Amino acid sequence: MKKLLYILLFSCSFTFAQADRVEPPFWYAGMHNPELQILFYGKNIAQYTTTVSNNVVIKNVVKTENPNYVFVTIDTKNVPASELTFSFKNKNKVAFTQKYSLKARKANSAQRASYDSSDMMYLIMPDRFANGNPANDSEKSTTEKVKRDNPNGRHGGDIEGIIKNLDYIKELGATAVWVTPLCEDNDARGSYHGYGQSDVYKIDPRYGTNEDYLRLSAEVKKKGMKLVLDYVTNHWGAEHWMYKDLPTYDWVHQFPGYSQSNYRMATQFDSNASAVDKRQCVDGWFVPSMPDLNQSNPLVLNYLTQNAIWWIEYAELDGFRVDTYSYNDKEGISKWTKAITDEYPYFNIAGEVWMNDQAQMAYWQKDSKIGAIQSYNSHLPTVMDFTGMDALAGAFNEDDAGWDKGMFRMYNNYVNDFLYPNVNNLLIFAENHDTGRFNEIYKNDFKKYQMAMALLATVRGIPQLYYGSEIGMAGDKGKGDGDIRHDFPGGWAGDANNAFTKAGRNAQQQQYFDFTSKLFTWRKNKEVIHTGKTTQYLPDNNVYVYFRHNDKETVMVAINNSAEAKTFKTARFTESIKTHKSGKDVLTGKTVDVSAEVTMEPKSVLVLELN
Amino acid sequence: MKKLLYILLFSCSFTFAQADRVEPPFWYAGMHNPELQILFYGKNIAQYTTTVSNNVVIKNVVKTENPNYVFVTIDTKNVPASELTFSFKNKNKVAFTQKYSLKARKANSAQRASYDSSDMMYLIMPDRFANGNPANDSEKSTTEKVKRDNPNGRHGGDIEGIIKNLDYIKELGATAVWVTPLCEDNDARGSYHGYGQSDVYKIDPRYGTNEDYLRLSAEVKKKGMKLVLDYVTNHWGAEHWMYKDLPTYDWVHQFPGYSQSNYRMATQFDSNASAVDKRQCVDGWFVPSMPDLNQSNPLVLNYLTQNAIWWIEYAELDGFRVDTYSYNDKEGISKWTKAITDEYPYFNIAGEVWMNDQAQMAYWQKDSKIGAIQSYNSHLPTVMDFTGMDALAGAFNEDDAGWDKGMFRMYNNYVNDFLYPNVNNLLIFAENHDTGRFNEIYKNDFKKYQMAMALLATVRGIPQLYYGSEIGMAGDKGKGDGDIRHDFPGGWAGDANNAFTKAGRNAQQQQYFDFTSKLFTWRKNKEVIHTGKTTQYLPDNNVYVYFRHNDKETVMVAINNSAEAKTFKTARFTESIKTHKSGKDVLTGKTVDVSAEVTMEPKSVLVLELN
Repeated sequence: MKKLLYILLFSCSFTFAQADRVEPPFWYAGMHNPELQILFYGKNIAQYTTTVSNNVVIKNVVKTENPNYVFVTIDTKNVPASELTFSFKNKNKVAFTQKYSLKARKANSAQRASYDSSDMMYLIMPDRFANGNPANDSEKSTTEKVKRDNPNGRHGGDIEGIIKNLDYIKELGATAVWVTPLCEDNDARGSYHGYGQSDVYKIDPRYGTNEDYLRLSAEVKKKGMKLVLDYVTNHWGAEHWMYKDLPTYDWVHQFPGYSQSNYRMATQFDSNASAVDKRQCVDGWFVPSMPDLNQSNPLVLNYLTQNAIWWIEYAELDGFRVDTYSYNDKEGISKWTKAITDEYPYFNIAGEVWMNDQAQMAYWQKDSKIGAIQSYNSHLPTVMDFTGMDALAGAFNEDDAGWDKGMFRMYNNYVNDFLYPNVNNLLIFAENHDTGRFNEIYKNDFKKYQMAMALLATVRGIPQLYYGSEIGMAGDKGKGDGDIRHDFPGGWAGDANNAFTKAGRNAQQQQYFDFTSKLFTWRKNKEVIHTGKTTQYLPDNNVYVYFRHNDKETVMVAINNSAEAKTFKTARFTESIKTHKSGKDVLTGKTVDVSAEVTMEPKSVLVLELN
Repeated sequence: MKKLLYILLFSCSFTFAQADRVEPPFWYAGMHNPELQILFYGKNIAQYTTTVSNNVVIKNVVKTENPNYVFVTIDTKNVPASELTFSFKNKNKVAFTQKYSLKARKANSAQRASYDSSDMMYLIMPDRFANGNPANDSEKSTTEKVKRDNPNGRHGGDIEGIIKNLDYIKELGATAVWVTPLCEDNDARGSYHGYGQSDVYKIDPRYGTNEDYLRLSAEVKKKGMKLVLDYVTNHWGAEHWMYKDLPTYDWVHQFPGYSQSNYRMATQFDSNASAVDKRQCVDGWFVPSMPDLNQSNPLVLNYLTQNAIWWIEYAELDGFRVDTYSYNDKEGISKWTKAITDEYPYFNIAGEVWMNDQAQMAYWQKDSKIGAIQSYNSHLPTVMDFTGMDALAGAFNEDDAGWDKGMFRMYNNYVNDFLYPNVNNLLIFAENHDTGRFNEIYKNDFKKYQMAMALLATVRGIPQLYYGSEIGMAGDKGKGDGDIRHDFPGGWAGDANNAFTKAGRNAQQQQYFDFTSKLFTWRKNKEVIHTGKTTQYLPDNNVYVYFRHNDKETVMVAINNSAEAKTFKTARFTESIKTHKSGKDVLTGKTVDVSAEVTMEPKSVLVLELN
């Protein structure tokens, strides 16, 4: 049967009316980088010579060892929005033509704003959030069908489900929404996580259509929020159509065959590292089902860059989160990041650089002085504060701080802030879709949740919350990813519990939600938190006090992480408290006297606006 | 009685023939910095005006709130070696005169060489090493008398004891000797450690005389070794003569009264740190018995700088180790270090910067790119690899390396080498006089000792050994400092066991000594170890393999830290092994085939010179 299909395709190849794939499917006039590399795919398409209409200049035509691909680079400089026609000729005879749109850009597209430290980012795994359209739970063109009782199966959540619950997200105090990848992932199993994409120009039909995604973007904007796309440069899924018919042998890393990453990202800057370990880290595959893309191949790099830009322009995106950032070819990912930020100077990109050492994380941030030791500049605006996450996961169970436990974990994390070129551009979080849930680690101890959230809402950086934790959801990474990616209650018709609405929430959910919502709603307009300076004081008896301040305001945060009530004198904080006598607690509305001493309940937090 | 003395002194003050103290007691002609600040001390000496002979220019005279001090700064530029005479006048009448020598410098004094990564440094606590002269164990001018059965008392070790055992030290493979402070420490208790100095121009008489110290320096040189002085800029002892009659209130940090350091050195670069915590760290005292010197007072800074230079010039020193380096005033200690290295461009100084983070340690090394983030340059040539010490203390009890245990502790330490401006200038060690002894941590497991020492002898940096560990001495920091500072057996007449001689060593001592001596004697001429490049490979099954290499030689080190015999294929190391087929094991002399695979005993190490 397969053989027959090949014969059929082959026999048709001399007569096909258009290419099977054209990527990007269209483009925009007036981009900063005028060069556009268009991929034309079709059986034996490389046999043709290519021309283009409208006096557009073809700068380059690349044919590879696979005759089914042609990469045509045109110069779009000064080419207005228009319909171009590519002609594919055989001995001067046009075999077929291909229309290609250069569309007009939206006004100020290049100058679009992005997310920053004034935002709170809500992280959603779409399959597990809300099933807005049960009709698309399973469909023909994709293999895996819905099976909600399988923790690793598809549960049916979709774009419509997000759209329907944007008010909930907004009410929580979020101002940006990071949705894990929505493009087609046609893996037979575990496709719900979306990181093994099979078509990066197409929304997975089980989430909706490309148009649904545009609608999501528009609705998010209407609510005054921002949409962040989770981009994956490092790998595709094994079902990606190009992986099944590779343009070049080195489009992905081959050893030959499969070879796994050693996951030792430090090899990328270790001056003692062996070449073999360095290579294995970035060229080795993340998992067998994810072919590892070769960003040092310019065709690949251009493909990924243009795909990313296409989504920004097409879906009017407000930012990226980039998966496995430091697993990419180091020079390649730097070029990719620069190309995007050259197009959109204010566009924020948060890279997943999962390391346990601040110097190593700081290495990857744009204009890093540590990267500069090796003349490296990633151009990545934002890195993720994984050491902060580690600290949060350890701090609150330690009633006694000792030399480096309890609140010293937090204090010690911020001690190294000076290593980062831009400390406001740190994504800060207690958890994400790859880690144990905070409420699991702390066994739903609400006091610990309060301390952690108050901290995330008041330290420097861009706080990120993981869907569900705000209503107390727990989940154990040790039990598998399914356990940390449970369905949001109420996202499915017939759910006994609907935590999306006040009426549907149980008492515990309401308690979590109220607290979180109050905190992050307060944060929305607090410039002093967004961009103020931080002054921190050494934890004393596991009580950690720090201040955020600017010319206009001072916020005092005190966390008593000991299991006992504590009274502390405020004289030590004079340089920060100055002449203030009291502060209004953001959480309770009560006024707290700070003129001499402050008493705090065990395991409690105060967020005081000094007045 | 005291009162009577004061009255006597006072009554004499108008007639005294010379100052009670002149510091530096003499100086040298032709120094790089021509300015010399001479302290004259005597009752009411500030009443006089000061002149000097030989047309020497007085640049500055500083009188303080204490009339017993005058600081006279002269310009020694172009002043030859000579005897100067200072005249102290009262209303133009010379009250008294003071001779002052500007001595001739030794040839090439300024260009003296120093210790570097070709050296192995042997660390001695002189009171606990060898009692060469029992006659000076107790003496009149100092309070604490010998009491060998007190772990915190004086045991009688001295300079003569070191001199007598230099052959032993040399035979061990050491090429440099770091002796903890030898200047007078007249504390009533615990004076043996020497860090609470009471006179920084005078060797403690219980160790010997200044001349004995010169003799030690000369004898060390004769053996082809180098002498390293342990300098303390941060504090003096409470018995220091100047502390008892402070030149200025701010000569030491006063709060007023005593206030202890918070020991949080990270406050010194934490951009979020409160001023109060920053100050408390460096201005707070280390312990109540050690007045904390104020290096931001130029008089103090000059005093400390000149004292240090005086010892270098006087005793022909080869290098410094500086105590509590990062507890000093940050700008002050940078100036101090620069002043010394301006005088002696090749002089090495290792600063005790005891932190647990490489970026934080790298901050303090000369020309650090991390320091440069805050426009800070300590000018300190060498820092101490405390994270390496931490790693050594954890690695060898972990049979299973997991993700970050066992040999990954070592590997991960070297991953951050790129943060250091000069990785060869790291003092590397398993222990020192302030930590638990390696042999205690590892319960005298000789295999673990072998792995650790082979590692220290072959990785980048300047290895430092702590006296006694080379014969298996153990000691538990938890039991107090006395336990990690036991007397070296054989250092005292009548010691039942004399580990200084082959005849006197027991079997275990001989086993330790032979191994250590063979290793470090081999290292002496191994340029490939001193300055070669390092290539390390990811530990596999707790087997860690790395190479040191230069154009001429390659040394392969393999450590099997698992509790099982291991066989590993060498194909993975091709980029380092190249065409070599075998290597000679430095430790056994046997030839090991590396062409295909290598088998290693449990908990063992190979140091192979590839050939």
